[in-house]
Amino acid sequence: MRQIVTDAEATARGRTLGDADLPLYDVIRYHLGWVDEQFIENAADPGKRIRLSICLLSTGAAGGDPEKAIPVAAAIELLHNFTLMHDDIQDRSELRRGRQTVWRRWGEAQAINAGDATFALSQIALFKSAERGIDGETMSNLATEFNGMTLQIVEGQVLDLGFAERWDVGVDDYLRMIGGKTAAIVAFAAWSGAVFAGRDPNTCRRFHDFGQLLGLGFQIRDDYLGIWGDAQSTGKQPGDDIRGRKQSIPLIMLSESLTDTGLAQLREIYRKQNLSESDVQHVTRLLSENDIPERVQALTTEYHDRAISVLGEVAEPGEARDALTMLAERLVDRSR
Amino acid sequence: MRQIVTDAEATARGRTLGDADLPLYDVIRYHLGWVDEQFIENAADPGKRIRLSICLLSTGAAGGDPEKAIPVAAAIELLHNFTLMHDDIQDRSELRRGRQTVWRRWGEAQAINAGDATFALSQIALFKSAERGIDGETMSNLATEFNGMTLQIVEGQVLDLGFAERWDVGVDDYLRMIGGKTAAIVAFAAWSGAVFAGRDPNTCRRFHDFGQLLGLGFQIRDDYLGIWGDAQSTGKQPGDDIRGRKQSIPLIMLSESLTDTGLAQLREIYRKQNLSESDVQHVTRLLSENDIPERVQALTTEYHDRAISVLGEVAEPGEARDALTMLAERLVDRSR
Repeated sequence: MRQIVTDAEATARGRTLGDADLPLYDVIRYHLGWVDEQFIENAADPGKRIRLSICLLSTGAAGGDPEKAIPVAAAIELLHNFTLMHDDIQDRSELRRGRQTVWRRWGEAQAINAGDATFALSQIALFKSAERGIDGETMSNLATEFNGMTLQIVEGQVLDLGFAERWDVGVDDYLRMIGGKTAAIVAFAAWSGAVFAGRDPNTCRRFHDFGQLLGLGFQIRDDYLGIWGDAQSTGKQPGDDIRGRKQSIPLIMLSESLTDTGLAQLREIYRKQNLSESDVQHVTRLLSENDIPERVQALTTEYHDRAISVLGEVAEPGEARDALTMLAERLVDRSR
Repeated sequence: MRQIVTDAEATARGRTLGDADLPLYDVIRYHLGWVDEQFIENAADPGKRIRLSICLLSTGAAGGDPEKAIPVAAAIELLHNFTLMHDDIQDRSELRRGRQTVWRRWGEAQAINAGDATFALSQIALFKSAERGIDGETMSNLATEFNGMTLQIVEGQVLDLGFAERWDVGVDDYLRMIGGKTAAIVAFAAWSGAVFAGRDPNTCRRFHDFGQLLGLGFQIRDDYLGIWGDAQSTGKQPGDDIRGRKQSIPLIMLSESLTDTGLAQLREIYRKQNLSESDVQHVTRLLSENDIPERVQALTTEYHDRAISVLGEVAEPGEARDALTMLAERLVDRSR
């Protein structure tokens, strides 16, 4: 992946402003976990790289050569990181992977720039695919899907930000939101893997479904960990999503389960400027009393099982399919 | 252009979240001047659309059919508008084309989203070119250049933001900055026009030079208007760039002309929290005494003349070349 990113950057910088005193690309390397705050090489947590793995493993599971999909996998990972940089500004998140976020360290304006540049780099990386024997028509199709998927992510983010001002968010709204914000890129990763394996459009579409279902299960698990996760594994305090008043699936399910009186109490807590520890405990107790932890985990399992079942139908038996299945298992039980 | 944008949007929304209550695309239409704040159709100022015109006229002047270049021209205009939405956040600009900026009206987070989505739409518009007989290799080349150019714009913006904290910005630094921030997209517009006319790489490169020179002259004229422009034409007060302490070319030339004592006085004024009207008049007088208005305009004229000369060498004689020459003339004398 580093080679692809370096190539993409060189493509642009070879004929441009590029010079040592422009920190833009170093800021991106920092975000990717390759250098520290002084831009000195180090080995920070680069994230889970799930999307990249799903793309490469899907190519293999669809009977293709994962080598061919390396540029698109790098493009997917870069795109994901561009959205993280902008999300962190929007959510005012101060930490990511145990380090200061880009906006927190270098200011909002430069974080907007770093995200924009990473988006452009992701597109350049995508076009490195043309050098690996992808024909022009497939390339155009791929690029159009890649950008359509980006629009889905942005649409999901718009919905998510809008939820903060609403009391009537239902499970359907939530699934639509995470379908864009989280699942679209996982679906694209699996779909493009099958495209690079040269499979027919219907089969590619089934790989897309697999990714979509897996992405939904993944995000629901993420919401679970946001309340019941172990601090040591997640790097967050249990209950953090309650403190942040996030409209995550546990809270939405709870709202739908409560009586009018219960709902009024919950809203009263959520209207406060700052939640006390006893408020957090109160909400946690409400969640338990309504079996929300079990119901949330059951939903993750449901999406995961459907994903595995689709994969079983379309993937070629072999190492790649086994690895992809194992990755899916890990995602549904993961603790971080 | 509206058709291209609508097509690009439909490409994404046909299979996604698309629904009436998601304001994302309406916010983009507002920014483009197609609807008002209530998202009702109106005819606001859509901007000068110079980049779009330069692309289409360059196709004609290179002996091609401008119809073929409509998608890439739309892509260029969308890309430009994406950068404006993000610039307005970074510069805290409250007005654009006489109306509230997107971040001012809907908040920063949604302005980041609207910009990101417009960037993705610009890429989808670009790929509509494939439907107009552009072969796969040219398409990939075009997309890589398009994103390389975007990186140049972002690099220019990074430099520009960095200037605000520096006292030692020279004319060379400035030219490098506007070479990315303003000229790169004009150069791409002219270059892609020649590509769509099927010209050889060397000729295309000369069209690129024409656009680069024209873009530099254009930005220098913009800086001139930022201080000496007529309020009625520009919609800004004369001296606005002095009040905003912008490191525009007049100020940079002035700094290079002053003695140490004069420079110390200028810095003292620029260190103030708010500039008084007498401060603004003082700086305006310094500019006049050092012949800066004349020198700035001479620089615009120089770049403009070089641009016209390159165009004369490579363009086919005819209506398109004449129109392109006239456009260049207008840009150098424009009052808004």
